[in-house]
Amino acid sequence: MHANHTPTLTLACELIARPSVTPEDAGCLDLISARLQALGFTCERIDTGGVSNLWARRGSQAPVLCLAGHTDVVPPGPAAAWDTPPFEPNLRDGLLYGRGAADMKTSLAAFVTAIERFVSACPDHEGSIALLLTSDEEGVATHGTVKVVEALAARGERIDYCIVGEPTSVSTLGDMIKNGRRGSLSGSLRVKGLQGHVAYPQLARNPIHLFAPALAELAAIRWDEGNEFFPPTTWQVSNIHAGTGANNVIPGVCEVLFNFRFGSVSTADDLKRRTCEILDRHGLDYEIDWHLSGKPFITGRGQLVRALSAAIHDTVGVTTELSTTGGTSDGRFIADICPEVVEFGPVNATIHKINECVAIDAVEPLSAIYERTLAALLQPAG
Amino acid sequence: MHANHTPTLTLACELIARPSVTPEDAGCLDLISARLQALGFTCERIDTGGVSNLWARRGSQAPVLCLAGHTDVVPPGPAAAWDTPPFEPNLRDGLLYGRGAADMKTSLAAFVTAIERFVSACPDHEGSIALLLTSDEEGVATHGTVKVVEALAARGERIDYCIVGEPTSVSTLGDMIKNGRRGSLSGSLRVKGLQGHVAYPQLARNPIHLFAPALAELAAIRWDEGNEFFPPTTWQVSNIHAGTGANNVIPGVCEVLFNFRFGSVSTADDLKRRTCEILDRHGLDYEIDWHLSGKPFITGRGQLVRALSAAIHDTVGVTTELSTTGGTSDGRFIADICPEVVEFGPVNATIHKINECVAIDAVEPLSAIYERTLAALLQPAG
Repeated sequence: MHANHTPTLTLACELIARPSVTPEDAGCLDLISARLQALGFTCERIDTGGVSNLWARRGSQAPVLCLAGHTDVVPPGPAAAWDTPPFEPNLRDGLLYGRGAADMKTSLAAFVTAIERFVSACPDHEGSIALLLTSDEEGVATHGTVKVVEALAARGERIDYCIVGEPTSVSTLGDMIKNGRRGSLSGSLRVKGLQGHVAYPQLARNPIHLFAPALAELAAIRWDEGNEFFPPTTWQVSNIHAGTGANNVIPGVCEVLFNFRFGSVSTADDLKRRTCEILDRHGLDYEIDWHLSGKPFITGRGQLVRALSAAIHDTVGVTTELSTTGGTSDGRFIADICPEVVEFGPVNATIHKINECVAIDAVEPLSAIYERTLAALLQPAG
Repeated sequence: MHANHTPTLTLACELIARPSVTPEDAGCLDLISARLQALGFTCERIDTGGVSNLWARRGSQAPVLCLAGHTDVVPPGPAAAWDTPPFEPNLRDGLLYGRGAADMKTSLAAFVTAIERFVSACPDHEGSIALLLTSDEEGVATHGTVKVVEALAARGERIDYCIVGEPTSVSTLGDMIKNGRRGSLSGSLRVKGLQGHVAYPQLARNPIHLFAPALAELAAIRWDEGNEFFPPTTWQVSNIHAGTGANNVIPGVCEVLFNFRFGSVSTADDLKRRTCEILDRHGLDYEIDWHLSGKPFITGRGQLVRALSAAIHDTVGVTTELSTTGGTSDGRFIADICPEVVEFGPVNATIHKINECVAIDAVEPLSAIYERTLAALLQPAG
């Protein structure tokens, strides 16, 4: 450890050194729990299905301000491709390198040090401070945050404000908050034809040919125009497969995976209905399985957005932008028990990549922003 | 083996039981060679490039009547989709089931038993009887019949009449002879896009979406109207593949295999030019590799067509139709050293499909037709 390590940087390094490839936690939660318990938090582990989950709370009153996130990271890829080993935190050229540096161990460290300073300055804060952490965000996300939310809902515990520490900044710390996320609806489509020899197309039905006009139509549709919160809904085919390799056989089936990202203008049911209408109109014989992995959620310009935006401005002088772009996050689950959910964290340019990193001079400011938000919402008046 | 198996049916079952998925021979040629050697044939294996080839000949004089065919079969597809295992010949409801039953192991069995009866009845026939068999007809066909034809041409050996045992009958045995074949032109197309995350389609270019309108157009085109010998040209996609399985990634490339079957109205160069014109008009970034696997060929109403038509009429009472429809066959290669090439075999309705089969009551008549043709062309006068 360098002598000039700040508290947040030190903790971020300790977390990065734990190789918590999803769904492993690798001891991160123990480290964090110990720090929180010293502050009077009640720490509850809700581990399930090989996943480590923590619900920690200080205080029993409303409002509950929750900081949420994940200790797991995506696999580092070939370690040799990294300039320094992915699980050995390394400081050089003003950057902290390591898998999870940006997504999202620096946020976790900033949560903890922000809470430490706030509780120290204001031990009798109003309401409650909570942490909701999981080791299953980057994977299938079936035993992580969703399970904690279910457990809280079952006992009637709710959250008033939640900040998810996802790396939302684009160019510089604080330039973007995510105040909602699009929904994600996937379809697995099997268009059925009749297998045969390419030389006898009249005895076969080629599912690729049959599907082509419907595919062209689906790809060209403008599903909606979006609204003030969400960009227009998009439809993308991620996979199309037909044929066994033999070039003289007309395949019997064409398999297609596609995905909608949609805002609050269209509903999942709308999109399903409109898709099937097109497939039906083209006279296709098909099967389709749908998977709704997240409904859209949106948090308006309420207390939380105002407090966080002000904290950003006061700390780094940046006027933040609200956005609902990007992939899904655990915010989709928390929104079920919390009316105001936003996401905010460091610059995301290197997440999931080789040589993931975060600017060292953004680490303490990030912690300061979280602390100012805690103060704005939980510090007793006067 | 059932007690009521006829000789041809028995041999057909023995061949089907050998899982000779192209380019495997799985012992079929050994079985056939043993039968031919017993009749005084000289059997020469011309194996090359992992392919098994047989040139067998009885007699040294002209005319040479050759029966030609292949022991390989197309892959069975999912075995579970078959009512009975594809490589276990099964008799039920008047049908013989198994991969290769129609294409073309029943023809091979009928060749052998026809020759056995003919040689037994007429040991001192005129000219020569030959068999040209390969295990590489259903695959790339680069080391099969073409190599045997090259070897024969190199030593000045030629064929006067050739019957390829392809399944040419449509509704009932004998209703169609192929007296020529369309050409076959294949294309391997790679449509290039730009890989990305499905949540950020504006940062990617989806090659499936880009290709869709061109695909729909290509599938709808009428390429030509055919002529007196050939039906209209057809275009079929046999394979389309894009995506790695992950449903959150827009793939970077879409790979497509397609095939033209064309007569003498369009040329291969025409078809290439027209295809690229469409791809270019849709603004696609692509690579394409072409493979011309056979130019069209045609055999008029000569000795062979007359003898075979008469044999069909005398055996099953059907007036046969001449046609040039259907796939390519090894006839395209043999035509280089043989002026009269026709194709004749059982009903082709189930070839290359699940539950491929042939009518049991057509098996011995098929053998009788081949035998009568041998007699018409090689039995001494008087």
